[in-house]
Amino acid sequence: MVRAMSRSTRFVDACYGRPTDCTPVWLMRQAGRYQASYREIRKTVSFFDLCQNPEIAAQVTVTAVDELNADAGIIFSDILVPVRAMGAPVELTEKGPQLATPIRTRADIDALKIIDPNVECSFVMDAIKQTCAAFDGKVPLIGFAGGPVTLASYLVEGGHSNNFMHLKNMLYADPETGHALLGKLATMIARHLRAQAEAGCGAIQLFESWGGIFGPEDFREFAFRYHKQILDELSDVKVPKLLFGTGTAVVLEQLKEAGPDVVGVDWRIGLDAARKRLGPDTPLQGNLDPCCLFMDEGPLKERIQRVLAQAGDNPGYIFNLGHGILPPTKPERARFLVDTVHELTRR
Amino acid sequence: MVRAMSRSTRFVDACYGRPTDCTPVWLMRQAGRYQASYREIRKTVSFFDLCQNPEIAAQVTVTAVDELNADAGIIFSDILVPVRAMGAPVELTEKGPQLATPIRTRADIDALKIIDPNVECSFVMDAIKQTCAAFDGKVPLIGFAGGPVTLASYLVEGGHSNNFMHLKNMLYADPETGHALLGKLATMIARHLRAQAEAGCGAIQLFESWGGIFGPEDFREFAFRYHKQILDELSDVKVPKLLFGTGTAVVLEQLKEAGPDVVGVDWRIGLDAARKRLGPDTPLQGNLDPCCLFMDEGPLKERIQRVLAQAGDNPGYIFNLGHGILPPTKPERARFLVDTVHELTRR
Repeated sequence: MVRAMSRSTRFVDACYGRPTDCTPVWLMRQAGRYQASYREIRKTVSFFDLCQNPEIAAQVTVTAVDELNADAGIIFSDILVPVRAMGAPVELTEKGPQLATPIRTRADIDALKIIDPNVECSFVMDAIKQTCAAFDGKVPLIGFAGGPVTLASYLVEGGHSNNFMHLKNMLYADPETGHALLGKLATMIARHLRAQAEAGCGAIQLFESWGGIFGPEDFREFAFRYHKQILDELSDVKVPKLLFGTGTAVVLEQLKEAGPDVVGVDWRIGLDAARKRLGPDTPLQGNLDPCCLFMDEGPLKERIQRVLAQAGDNPGYIFNLGHGILPPTKPERARFLVDTVHELTRR
Repeated sequence: MVRAMSRSTRFVDACYGRPTDCTPVWLMRQAGRYQASYREIRKTVSFFDLCQNPEIAAQVTVTAVDELNADAGIIFSDILVPVRAMGAPVELTEKGPQLATPIRTRADIDALKIIDPNVECSFVMDAIKQTCAAFDGKVPLIGFAGGPVTLASYLVEGGHSNNFMHLKNMLYADPETGHALLGKLATMIARHLRAQAEAGCGAIQLFESWGGIFGPEDFREFAFRYHKQILDELSDVKVPKLLFGTGTAVVLEQLKEAGPDVVGVDWRIGLDAARKRLGPDTPLQGNLDPCCLFMDEGPLKERIQRVLAQAGDNPGYIFNLGHGILPPTKPERARFLVDTVHELTRR
């Protein structure tokens, strides 16, 4: 098949290490509070209601791609959407996601429903179908899920945590219960990612945003084994799979070993060091510190150039931030970033 | 000078890589809320009032050493004590340390007082003198300060932060202002550490607890250069200097390059990997995950053995947690840890 190297294919091509016309770029949380259009919509609908409304979710997904000229969309949803569907009482508060009653006992875990994402999260699949129809092949859409450790941390801690004390108490002092929770989440995650690919997503990303809480042995025991299990279960799903971790520089080799097509890294490690450790055949995604978007265009451009230089001359590379874009970011600075990456890498 | 290898010398000997009778051990935040004796005292005195009362500060410092049989004391104080003395309006709330008005402008920074720690923090030096008198050479006392990035993060964010957005906004978008703050803090930190050594401390530790927020280049620019400056300024202070970072595994070599006698690491990197990267001549301190203290004695002992095995057969090693001991920890488990380290390493 002859394919023009263009915006429509450059993201997926880069995920497979194939040559592209320029470096693809998208931004984690690219549909969000930094956009005036998003804030306007959120005046009329709560966060989780927005996630559950396919029309509006598709609209904000498409608008973000259009405003940024990004090379991929990511379906507007939240990592906690499917755990809410499992029955976990997650609400979004000013302090972030909160559970009035955290999940801490075997009985709490057993009470979590085993869901069919096509039923209990059908609104996500509907949003994906509507978004793909709107994109009409212009760019691919990324589906996603939170990693087991990240989801478990919210459920067990009851919200954000500084020390992940309750989660680690469960995992270290009562590993049987801990594995029961992680295993149940991993099963749900694999199903949720599969359903999103079947609904039309051209790629799927696993966000292990709290993967950095462990040392290497505990990461292998509580994170890696489920990443591998999830990716093994999805081996017949023929879209690129991205595994992203935050604070996981020490265990980078374990991210690769789990078997994703692309390893996503945060800004705490240089892409040159990551390349050195993972080899040239592992496509990378990342990793500009989101706070760099607070800089003026000149210094920001220097930072972008540094990231590109560290990524090196390797087609297996997708430019992204090292974590989600922050609410105070000026939208024009985000657009400048996308345009600058395209300009600097046009081949 | 002939010295018996004993409890009184093993901590300092290990800091210099000299043989010891067994591996020395102390715990970060070893005087604190996990102790019934501490909670009892805190019923009658607020946290910062306790820091400013030399008699009670000395008492809780000594009690912790006695209850644990630790090989070093650490003066009861807080990293924010000297920045309060500089005029920063830090109060301890349920959410942790908070500033009603964060330090964000050049004028805010210029308004911070340049202090003489022997005057504005004389209560710390008094507490050190009283503690040393009580120890009477039995164990050394550690003095400490927060690292410039860690202190700046509290001042600029106004409390704990998940993304350090305000601090990085200052450092990245207005580095001149950022360096003015970091430089002013570094000057204070060096003076504060010197004063504590002069008051009788047998070692000093710099806690860069939020050092893990940067990539390698930003760490060099905003953290390393001040660590080196502080340690250079203290080159004539003849007590061991320890530099501890959290989430700093990627920049471990920079911690060493700053010039401390001991590098302290958290549990996110194995001590074997740290040894490999820093070489056998850099004494290490750490690094059991504090949440391991929630385990029963059997599995906890296995974890202790693993840390000791990774530290290897090298006299330049001090056992510690990878971060402060957590409030729900059972005191008898902490004591079990100290006794177990001593038993397993008795030479």
